[in-house]
Amino acid sequence: MTEQKRPLLITTGEPAGIGMDVVLNLAAEGKLQDFDRPIWVTADASTMQVRAEELVSAGVLTEVPIWQTIDNEAGDFDMDAAEQIAQQDIDADSAFILLNVPCAGPVTGGQINIANSAMVAQQLDIAHQLAVNGTVAAIVTGPLQKSALIDAGIKLLDGTMFSGHTEFFMQQSGCEKVVMMLANQAMKVALVTTHLPLKDIPAAITADNVRQTVQIVVNDMREKFGLTQPRILVCGLNPHAGEGGHLGMEEIEIINPVLREFTDAGVNISEAMPADTLFTPRHLANCDAVIAMYHDQGLPVLKSHGFGDTVNLTLGLPYIRTSVDHGTALDLAGRGGASATSLYQALKMANEMADKSLTN
Amino acid sequence: MTEQKRPLLITTGEPAGIGMDVVLNLAAEGKLQDFDRPIWVTADASTMQVRAEELVSAGVLTEVPIWQTIDNEAGDFDMDAAEQIAQQDIDADSAFILLNVPCAGPVTGGQINIANSAMVAQQLDIAHQLAVNGTVAAIVTGPLQKSALIDAGIKLLDGTMFSGHTEFFMQQSGCEKVVMMLANQAMKVALVTTHLPLKDIPAAITADNVRQTVQIVVNDMREKFGLTQPRILVCGLNPHAGEGGHLGMEEIEIINPVLREFTDAGVNISEAMPADTLFTPRHLANCDAVIAMYHDQGLPVLKSHGFGDTVNLTLGLPYIRTSVDHGTALDLAGRGGASATSLYQALKMANEMADKSLTN
Repeated sequence: MTEQKRPLLITTGEPAGIGMDVVLNLAAEGKLQDFDRPIWVTADASTMQVRAEELVSAGVLTEVPIWQTIDNEAGDFDMDAAEQIAQQDIDADSAFILLNVPCAGPVTGGQINIANSAMVAQQLDIAHQLAVNGTVAAIVTGPLQKSALIDAGIKLLDGTMFSGHTEFFMQQSGCEKVVMMLANQAMKVALVTTHLPLKDIPAAITADNVRQTVQIVVNDMREKFGLTQPRILVCGLNPHAGEGGHLGMEEIEIINPVLREFTDAGVNISEAMPADTLFTPRHLANCDAVIAMYHDQGLPVLKSHGFGDTVNLTLGLPYIRTSVDHGTALDLAGRGGASATSLYQALKMANEMADKSLTN
Repeated sequence: MTEQKRPLLITTGEPAGIGMDVVLNLAAEGKLQDFDRPIWVTADASTMQVRAEELVSAGVLTEVPIWQTIDNEAGDFDMDAAEQIAQQDIDADSAFILLNVPCAGPVTGGQINIANSAMVAQQLDIAHQLAVNGTVAAIVTGPLQKSALIDAGIKLLDGTMFSGHTEFFMQQSGCEKVVMMLANQAMKVALVTTHLPLKDIPAAITADNVRQTVQIVVNDMREKFGLTQPRILVCGLNPHAGEGGHLGMEEIEIINPVLREFTDAGVNISEAMPADTLFTPRHLANCDAVIAMYHDQGLPVLKSHGFGDTVNLTLGLPYIRTSVDHGTALDLAGRGGASATSLYQALKMANEMADKSLTN
């Protein structure tokens, strides 16, 4: 009577990069079977075959792994067929189900061809659709080459130039705000601001931004991590969290008033804390997630405790999305040397979240 | 033929705080003998006796430790006597030599009496003199209550209000700039800026400031840590070290040009690196010191790897100075409960530096 769990979907991203390589590596090692869910993969079917053969020639794989391909006739996959295969194959030979997203131009590992940029964006669109309608339990994104999509003129829904996975999924989902979280065995850290020059950070620490970030973290810790009462610690913006106003006023004027709104509403959340005491074992031991105000306040400490197993998550989307933390590594595509550790960790995190998720 | 090594000098600081308590704790545990150097301590002799008796009454100590007192007649210690005692006592009963700096007013543990603030400043002055003339090998400072010195009107050499140990030693030594470094078993991190509101950091990252900081770190890693060719890694100011100018220009315009001056002069120093990759094991393994641009970029990661054994150092002074990383903990003075771990670590670091120091 156990119902088949919903699949995890991997987008392989840029075909000239290592996105397919790392999927093939895990397939060859039997590691895609570590999760009791079918693994679906978006890629161009013939390129995947060529890449697998290249990796066999390079001595990286001993043989071409087995997978099953679902074709994308008239722009639509036969999802019933995919699910049927997934049901049958959970203990069978196929390592994954490939959703064929054809490339428009030739693919050579290591050489960007912007004729294929539309196919990269199409993978994201398919992933979004399958996640938002509940066909797949989570999206795990492989690396894309942002500049290739920009050079090809790929645009986001709002008409602005393509600027990354996160913005793409955000606009497709109609989200005003999402939150970047990095997670590993040691800790989970969400950021109020992400990729801003240091000088632009203070202006971005508004009550609205802090409030929306906290709300998304609280919601997603509940809905996607299954924690009914998540325990959240928040860093101040300034050293020593402003030291009572001597080292900055943002804690007193902006951050703490917002945090008190949540405390008053029954959320288990700290006041603004000095970052250099927050990230110590006695605090982290009683904490489900940390909210840092900016990139270099939270990520150096997180990555120092587990660079290899760090996973990037997007909170605030209507579905689970994790990501590898490496780039396209063009020089390694088809040649070997690409590490699949990050993809494995991203799958593991997506799988754990899918199991704990309230919507599952 | 082994000559007696020069002493380590502890300033106990605020007499109403735990400065004396933690010295007495280490003395009672025999831990002041862990270093093959005499330990000298500045404190009021009669207050030290009272404090020791209080700790015996409180059940913290089983008996009053033994020490020898050198009186400060006419404002000058008999250093010959102190050194003679130090020579004799290295394996004898006395745990330390007390340089008596009398309090002007009564002392009650936990109650600040600003009549004694001058005595706190006098301890620092004595420490400076003994260090700068080479009588002691290093200064280890206990906690003081900054507000008490300010309330008592204690001023620095330049006539401005007392603002801390570091500024005091800096002015006494005629240093234009010193550098705060925190160190533990995991890493050593020096800061270009220290206690500034985040919004004021970018303006403080000038070529002069970066250059002076690097020069001091390089000099002191050579002179005080005995490393002829220290390997130094430097964080960028912006996330991803500015990502080639997309996330800020300070790396390109200010930081990297300065770092190249040092590289050109044969110093083993990196370019500006992304902080979230710098603090990972593979980089730290080949690094003697990290220079971070600001407090919350460097200290959360350092303290997360060893909060208990972290020591605060001041680089750029003409002598070695380490410090405990705790405050006066007024409520614990004379009552027990004060941990001497930080003092022990500060002594250990001072001792190691004294052994490696080129001037030793």
